[in-house]
Formats: sequence, structure tokens, C-alpha cells
Amino acid sequence: MISRMSSLFLRTLRDDPADAEVASHRLLVRAGYVRRAAPGIYSWLPLGLRVLRNVEGIIREEMDAMGAQELQFPALLPKEPYEASNRWTEYGDGLFRLQDRKGADYLLGPTHEEMFTLAVKDLYSSYKDLPVWLYQIQTKYRDEARPRAGILRGREFVMKDSYSFDTTDAGLEDSYLAHRDAYVRIFDRLGFDYAVVKATSGAMGGSRSEEFLAKADAGEDTYVRCTSCDYAANVEAVTTRPPAPTAYDGLPAAHAEKTPDTPTIATLVDVLNADHPRDDRPWTAGDTLKNVLVVLKHPDGTREPVAIGLPGDREVDQKRLDGQLEPIEVEPMDEEEIRRHPTLVKGYVGPGVLGEENASGIRYLVDPRVAEGTRWVTGADVAGSHVLDLVAGRDFTADGTIEAAEVRDGDPCPVCDDGSLETARGIEMGHIFALGTKYAEALGLQVLDEIGKLTTVTMGSYGIGVSRAVAAVAEGNHDELGLVWPREISPYDLHVVATGKDEAVFEAAEELVRELSGAGLSVLYDDRRKVSPGVKFKDAELVGVPSIVTVGRGLADGVVELKDRRSGERSDVPVGEAVARLTEVVRKG
Amino acid sequence: MISRMSSLFLRTLRDDPADAEVASHRLLVRAGYVRRAAPGIYSWLPLGLRVLRNVEGIIREEMDAMGAQELQFPALLPKEPYEASNRWTEYGDGLFRLQDRKGADYLLGPTHEEMFTLAVKDLYSSYKDLPVWLYQIQTKYRDEARPRAGILRGREFVMKDSYSFDTTDAGLEDSYLAHRDAYVRIFDRLGFDYAVVKATSGAMGGSRSEEFLAKADAGEDTYVRCTSCDYAANVEAVTTRPPAPTAYDGLPAAHAEKTPDTPTIATLVDVLNADHPRDDRPWTAGDTLKNVLVVLKHPDGTREPVAIGLPGDREVDQKRLDGQLEPIEVEPMDEEEIRRHPTLVKGYVGPGVLGEENASGIRYLVDPRVAEGTRWVTGADVAGSHVLDLVAGRDFTADGTIEAAEVRDGDPCPVCDDGSLETARGIEMGHIFALGTKYAEALGLQVLDEIGKLTTVTMGSYGIGVSRAVAAVAEGNHDELGLVWPREISPYDLHVVATGKDEAVFEAAEELVRELSGAGLSVLYDDRRKVSPGVKFKDAELVGVPSIVTVGRGLADGVVELKDRRSGERSDVPVGEAVARLTEVVRKG
Repeated sequence: MISRMSSLFLRTLRDDPADAEVASHRLLVRAGYVRRAAPGIYSWLPLGLRVLRNVEGIIREEMDAMGAQELQFPALLPKEPYEASNRWTEYGDGLFRLQDRKGADYLLGPTHEEMFTLAVKDLYSSYKDLPVWLYQIQTKYRDEARPRAGILRGREFVMKDSYSFDTTDAGLEDSYLAHRDAYVRIFDRLGFDYAVVKATSGAMGGSRSEEFLAKADAGEDTYVRCTSCDYAANVEAVTTRPPAPTAYDGLPAAHAEKTPDTPTIATLVDVLNADHPRDDRPWTAGDTLKNVLVVLKHPDGTREPVAIGLPGDREVDQKRLDGQLEPIEVEPMDEEEIRRHPTLVKGYVGPGVLGEENASGIRYLVDPRVAEGTRWVTGADVAGSHVLDLVAGRDFTADGTIEAAEVRDGDPCPVCDDGSLETARGIEMGHIFALGTKYAEALGLQVLDEIGKLTTVTMGSYGIGVSRAVAAVAEGNHDELGLVWPREISPYDLHVVATGKDEAVFEAAEELVRELSGAGLSVLYDDRRKVSPGVKFKDAELVGVPSIVTVGRGLADGVVELKDRRSGERSDVPVGEAVARLTEVVRKG
Repeated sequence: MISRMSSLFLRTLRDDPADAEVASHRLLVRAGYVRRAAPGIYSWLPLGLRVLRNVEGIIREEMDAMGAQELQFPALLPKEPYEASNRWTEYGDGLFRLQDRKGADYLLGPTHEEMFTLAVKDLYSSYKDLPVWLYQIQTKYRDEARPRAGILRGREFVMKDSYSFDTTDAGLEDSYLAHRDAYVRIFDRLGFDYAVVKATSGAMGGSRSEEFLAKADAGEDTYVRCTSCDYAANVEAVTTRPPAPTAYDGLPAAHAEKTPDTPTIATLVDVLNADHPRDDRPWTAGDTLKNVLVVLKHPDGTREPVAIGLPGDREVDQKRLDGQLEPIEVEPMDEEEIRRHPTLVKGYVGPGVLGEENASGIRYLVDPRVAEGTRWVTGADVAGSHVLDLVAGRDFTADGTIEAAEVRDGDPCPVCDDGSLETARGIEMGHIFALGTKYAEALGLQVLDEIGKLTTVTMGSYGIGVSRAVAAVAEGNHDELGLVWPREISPYDLHVVATGKDEAVFEAAEELVRELSGAGLSVLYDDRRKVSPGVKFKDAELVGVPSIVTVGRGLADGVVELKDRRSGERSDVPVGEAVARLTEVVRKG
């Protein structure tokens, strides 16, 4: 297969597009892979389409290999199934909605849980039919508030979405892990440096969930990872490693002290260091236990007052708190609500009155660091007083723990002993999700089990951003001169450049290109006659085919030049051996 | 490649879907190829998607082979380019329109003339860049008033659309013919019995245009074809073969006669036969020349009175008339307008006052049958009188001819001497169209010509209904038992059925299937253990893979049975030769 630069529908640009924020966007536009049609909506020019198809091909191969079956749902979908799942409303402004000529409501599919659920309901009726894994590679639509970075976050994009259907939790676990394995193979083949990040469930409900993030400074997603092991998680999903319970036999008894004018942790620490200095080290905010009062709004409408106890040197991370409690909503407790609990002394609330067994009747949840045997300075439930040497497990017991405190760089890794956590950025390339029964329940997908009883099917949903992968690979594979494609998704195997004005050069190049094509390689051949070698080489670097072959001056010595786009290494190849050598270079990857 | 019936996402249906109007719809649903998601919107199940991909593959191969370049535009498109071409309005209710979260107007692309035009404008600037042929295979949207017949006329459908860009009419002609040749190859490979039908321009404006119609009684499109040669045309595009001019030396002079009470052609014919009998044969309506008065409404708003003269035995075909005059609109001349022309005597209008040179000043266009030397009875421009023996070319001359008369079965073929026209029905599979400069003008696509002057580019547009082709092939390839796919688009090369309860049969079938797959064939393997042979064979007939291989009883004699789905022919194949023989059967097509 040969494309000729003289006729290829391509014009490279010397200048960056005005709206390009990231390297992949800049280079994919400049090198003629994509063009913007509207905000977040792009056209794929011939080079871009070839890369997109290669990415699709890798994904399709691996999905087929794992035993998933491909089908294709419409993008234009009727409202009803999305009303049944409540996503018609839940999706908010992110959903493109429209009406047909008869006024019936439709949407452009953002993902297809509903349609797959209905398809399985339509065709299957017995546990014997399951598990089944179905997928599609399809154009999807989301009306992003801020489409950005070219095809990295578009409003029309190509996605591979698959769905697993099982009758048992163990089956769902197997389906989930099978997808996880396939995703590892896919992202390895796509040439990504990626992290598998534990995720919270997000708006979709459900339980186990991981994201595959391509490591990239341009990424929109923040996560934390261990400096030592391969632990990685969304901030919402990070678990805190609690200190081991320690014995508290020798600790002094708790004692309340006057701490006037200490409305903040900082003022409290100053008073402690002034009035109650410690022998070993000064008091710090981390020695104090602050109790944050909130109200939980349950889905059934009831309101529940709760206190959250956490070390005084950490703030509550609202996203982590929300993630823990979803679908319950959380808001700060207001003055009026506080006044309704007369035992609460604002600014001086302590465990003495908290916990459902205690005076306030308010449920008391604490950070995992507030572990048995830890010693705290905290409110004495009397204005202007704090309790010192209050020991968890001896002097108070919480009703439970909660992961609500902010995560900081340097926090210990929850998994290994050596590492600490650090913040990193990435591009979400894939998401695997043990959905559970949400959609099956909403749409009535049940099958007969072994004893002839109807059982609700449990589902997993698994996505890969296909068009986004093109940008993400570009983001991770470029230099200042242009793109540097991994071999398996490069638009062509070879970029052959004929230089000079000698007709013999073009004849030799033409012959070589035909032989390479005959050997099954795809070749981009720069056959332009009136373009300088400098421009041709610049275009070749920009376009980013991994091997560049120059047919030019060396021909007099019977050689062509092979350049590795990534390393820049050059070597001469005798013309007679060129087809064999180049085929070998391409095949060995 | 092996798919197993035991796990394939497929359930065949014994009953026809309630809404199925045509065989292809009925069978594609029953055999598990497609499922309806909404009116005119279908999901592609695994079998259907394989056929769709095969059709796409054939089209892609031929488009690439002709030198067209593939790219991909969005389906979700901004309004502005479609406003510039006026299609935002012209398309009427057929366009799916929507707004994004910011209230900006978008549409779902019905075809992409505008986007391709803008892409060429974006990238190219010189005549040296042209011609260029670009195509995409893409999901398209039209809000059909009456979606019908399953995927035959859907609202979401897959289409191949290509566009040619040239600087000269001769270049456009070459581009048009290159597409025509490619289409012939494509439709031949798809196994269609088709007609290439001359078409009028339709709503798109422009000149030369042909449709590729698959011959099918279920087709929505009517056309006429010659019983003898391969002439075929839309009714709008049929040209009338005029009689050869004849000498009129010996004919009697024209003479006006009283013809009282002859408000209709029929009454006139009666009076003629009663009062002016002919020697050789009775008068018929075809001997009379009727003159129909209309008003042309030009796009610039001016109104022009015109008379259309045609043999009295034919009505004006409004579609043919509209097709001839587009974008001019035509309406009957009303009483008031007639009164404004005092020389016109209603019911007795004749050529004596018509023609721009004559008394009425009304332009006079005649049917091609009103040729020089033909003799007519027509209005004498006096109430109650007609002129007899009025000879065209001798007694009157029209301002021109027009194809406005109805076409009838039996009319002589305009091309060959032997044939006559007959009406036929078909499914529009492809449309090729020499568009001209409409879109280039609307969107400002100009390039520099050889002398450095800006010249407007001239375009062709060429479509193939890809998803429709799946239905149309099914429509033309089925019997009472099910589908019968042509080899090149069949979902699998072979359908292997293992029958009986003998484990050895399943082992032998498994081995055979693996070897066939290893030889590069795709196999649908019916490995179901608890399903009767009868059901398996019924499913195989319904699914329609062209070769069905049964591994069963014959195994004891060392043979498997090969059945040709189309002919029903059966033959035994020794197990040892099965892979070689079956590969040969598949490869020879």
C-alpha cells in the first residue's frame, strides 16, 4: 500500500493552531491528522483516520481474543430506556437531546448500558446463556462544558464500550478481571506508560472500579501513586493506613484545661506551647483532634447530624467525603441546627458528647488515624476549655471511621512499607467498572437460575476512549520536531523520501516503494518534485512514521539511508538488501 | 476465525416480526442480524455487523483502487456551512436539528457536501492540487417521514459518500466516469442485479446524474427501462424519441372547422369522426394537439406565461415538468391570468396565437412528438372551432421543446430501434451526480488556475447506501427458508453443523473447524449439544451462509456432507480432503 505525498490529501502547517493547549493537539493539527469542525468536534483526515483504525484494530483483536462479541448499537437513541435508568435526567447538560419530526424525544448516546441491557433481555432468558461479554466500537456524544485539547476531550468521539452479564458476584468478578487483563494487553500494545488507578464509583453507582490513566502532564485527571510500589488511586479512593493500635497503660489521665481565646487550631497550638509545654517536642496541629459537624441528607429525605473527627492538621476533603457517602449528600451543619443540640459548644466540641451513646446523640465518625491508643488534645465541650491526653479507646470510642481527610504528598502508602504517596496527572484512557444490578433492575433484566427462579443479572461496564487514545499516544510520543508513532499504530510502516532532481533517484525510489508495498508494507512516499529536501525531511519528522528511508545522493554508492525517527540513528542500507532489511526493521517492531 | 452457536449472541426467531413489510426485513430480524431500537433505527447484532463490515470492505477496496482517499467527518455538524448552502432550510423536516448546552445550532449530517468543500478549501489552493477524490464511510441521519422496511429506509444509516473536485467540466466528466466505473465494480461484487438509471437532478441542482437501482419488487423507486437494450431512466429523465421530420408537400392546407360542444378531447374526437371522417382510420386523441397554459415562477420572482403543446392522448406529468424546469416553479394559469391575454380563447387555444412572435406573446413549448411535418387538429383560437391539417413547421413553429408529457409502458425506446419502455421497481443503492459549482460557490471554494486567476471548483458527489445494501442484497438473495448470502459478503465462509449425540462427532467437528480456521476461513460452528439436527439445519438455512457442512452419521463412512445453500446440492467429502476441498469451494467463489 502506497500513498504519495504529491496527491495525499495533506497539508502540513508551520504554525501552531491558535487554540492548541497541548502538544498532541498542536502536532496532530500541524501534521494534518485532524481538523476542527466545531468546538470539541473534529474531522479525521487520511493520516489521522489510519491511526484511528490501527488503534481500533488493536482493541478489536484483544476484545475478540478474550471472547467478547462485537455488535453495534445506534448513536441516535429513544428516550425511554434512559428514563427508566434515570440517566435522561441525571446526565444533565452533558446529554445531547433532540426531537424528531413527530416531537418524540431522542438523545445521542453517551454510553450504552441501557441498550445492551435491553438486548440481553431481548435475546436471553437462562443462566445457561451467561456469562456473555458484548462490545462495540462506536461514535459517542457528550456535550462537555469545556471541550479541550483537541481530540483529547471531544464532544463527538469514538469509544469502545463493553458490558458483561453474569448471574453471580463471583461471575462478575471473573468478567471484571478478564476485562482488566485485556485492558493491560491493549494499553501495553498501544505503547502507553500508564497507571491502573483505583477509582470510586462516581455517578454511576456500583462497587469495584479502576481507571487506566496514561501518565501525562497534560492530563486532566489527578491521582496519587506510591513512590515505591505500584499502588495508585484516585484521591477519592485512597485508603489511609491506620497506625497500629498502641498500648496506653502508662499514659496520664485525661485532664481539661482552660484555653482561652483559641478559636482556631493555630491559636490552640500557641496556647498549648505557652501554657502546657511538652518535654520531647512542641505541640503541633497534628496533636489536636478537630470535630467537624455536618448533616447527611439521605435519599429518603431524612437529615442526620454527624460529627467527623480528624487530626487538626488536615482539612476535610469534600470530594473524598462525598465519594464515601454517595448517594447521601453532605452539608455543613448550620447555626440553627447546632443550637438544637444544647450539648454542642461551638468551637469546643469534643468526643465527650459525641457518639450515638453520648449526650448529643450525634453519630461520631473518625479518621482512621484516630486509632486505638492515640492521644489527643480536643474540645472539652465547655467554652474556652480543651481536654489534653484524651486517649482513643480508653477515654472515648467513635461509632466508626470515615475516609474524609485530605490526602497529602508524603502520606504513607497504604499498601507497602517503604513508599509514600505523591500526586500525579494522567489522561483517563479506560475505565472498568463492576456495575452490579443497577441497570438490570431498572430495565427488568432477569434470567432463570439453576432452580428455575428469576434472578437479576449483574453487570460490568468497561470503556476505552479510542479517539482519545490517538491523542494520548501522541501526547506521550513526540519531540520538538513532531510526532513519533509507536510502530503498531503508525499510519504507515515506512516514510520513503526521494531527494534531489535526478530522475534516476525517483525511478529507484519508485521501484523500492513498489517492492516494499509488494512485501506487504505500507509506505508513505514523498515523490514531490519541486519541494526541497529540507521541507521533505521536516514533514517526515512532523508526520512521525517511525522509520524514514531517504533515497538520494547515496544511490551513487548503492545505498539508501535509514533513519530511526525516535532515536535519530542513521544507517546506510545497500539498495539490494533494502527490502529485506526494512521488512525486518518493521516486523521486529 | 470460529464463532460457536453455543455462545454466539444470537437467537433465531420462528415468527416474523409484526412490523416487517418486506422479505429482507423479516429475514434479517428472524435470523438475528438486526434488531429495531426505534422507528427507522436499528442495532446490528454480531451476524449483521459482520455482513455490514464485508460490504464496507468491498466498497473501501474499490474506492481505494480508483484512487479516492478516505477520511471521516463528524456526524454532529455546526449549522453555519449548511446555512451557507441553504440546505439548513431546504432540507425541511428531513434534517435532525439540535442545540448544544450553549444554545448553538447543530444538525446530524444527511450528506457532507459542505464539509468536504470546506476541507478542500482549507487545504488546497491551486489547480495543481486537483483533481482530488475524497470519501468516507459514515453513519448518517435523515428524519424520514415514513421510515420503512427495516434497514432498507432507516433514519440512522451507514453511507459511503464521496466527492470529486475539478477545475474544468472535462475534469468533472472524468471524475464522474471514474466513479461510475467503480460503482459498476462494487455493485457487481455485491452480487446485485441492478440498473443504471438516468436521473434528474432532484433537489440538489446540477446536471448529469445517474442512479444505481437494485431490481426489486419491494423497491420504492419506479423507473422505466427498455425491453430490448439496457436503457433505463427515472420517469423524470426519460427522453422522447421524436419522429423523423417528414416532408409535407402533399398535405392539404390547414382549414378551420366548426366543432360545437367540444370542451374535451373526447368530445372533439367524436365530432371529428362524425363530421369529418377520415378515409384510412378513425380520428383518435393522438391526432389532436392540446395546449396547456401554465405560469413559470422564476427564482427572481418574475412570472412568465407559457403554453405547452402536446398530443391530446397524453397528460402533462407534473414531476417531469418540474424536473425540466427546476428551480423554476410551475403552476396552472388561472382564469384571471387568462383574461389578461385577450387573444386566448379558453378551450380553443391554438398555435395561431402562441409563440413569442405571435399575438399572445406567450412562449410556446411543445412535446418532441410535435415534430416538423406532423399534422394536427388543434384549437382555432375561436370559440367552437378547431383547425384541421395544421402542419408543424409549415403552419406554425414553437419556441422550443419540453419533456412534460407522461411516459407510458410501450413507448418506443429513445435509444434503440427495437425496444419499448416498461415500468420497473428498484431500490436506490447508489447515486452519482455531477454537481457543478453549487457548493463551491456557496462556500467560496476557488483555486488559482494556470494563469494565476481564481476559478471556482466544480464538484461531483457520489453516494452508496451501505447499510441499505445489506438489506437490498438480502432482498435479492433469499428463498422461503431464509437468507442466501453471496460469498463475498456472507458473515462466514462456512457453517459447520455437528449432529447427533456421539462425542466422536463433536471431536471430529472441532478438529475440522480448527483446521478450517487455521486455513484462513471463517467458520460458524453449530456445537450445541442439546439441540436437534432439525433445528440446527433450520437455523443454518435461515442464517444463509452459502456452504453448510454437516459432520454426523457420514463420519462412520469417513465423509462429511457439503450442501450448497443456494442450489441445495449435496455432496459427500472425505474427511481427509475436507479442508482442501472446502477451501477450494470458498476461494473459487
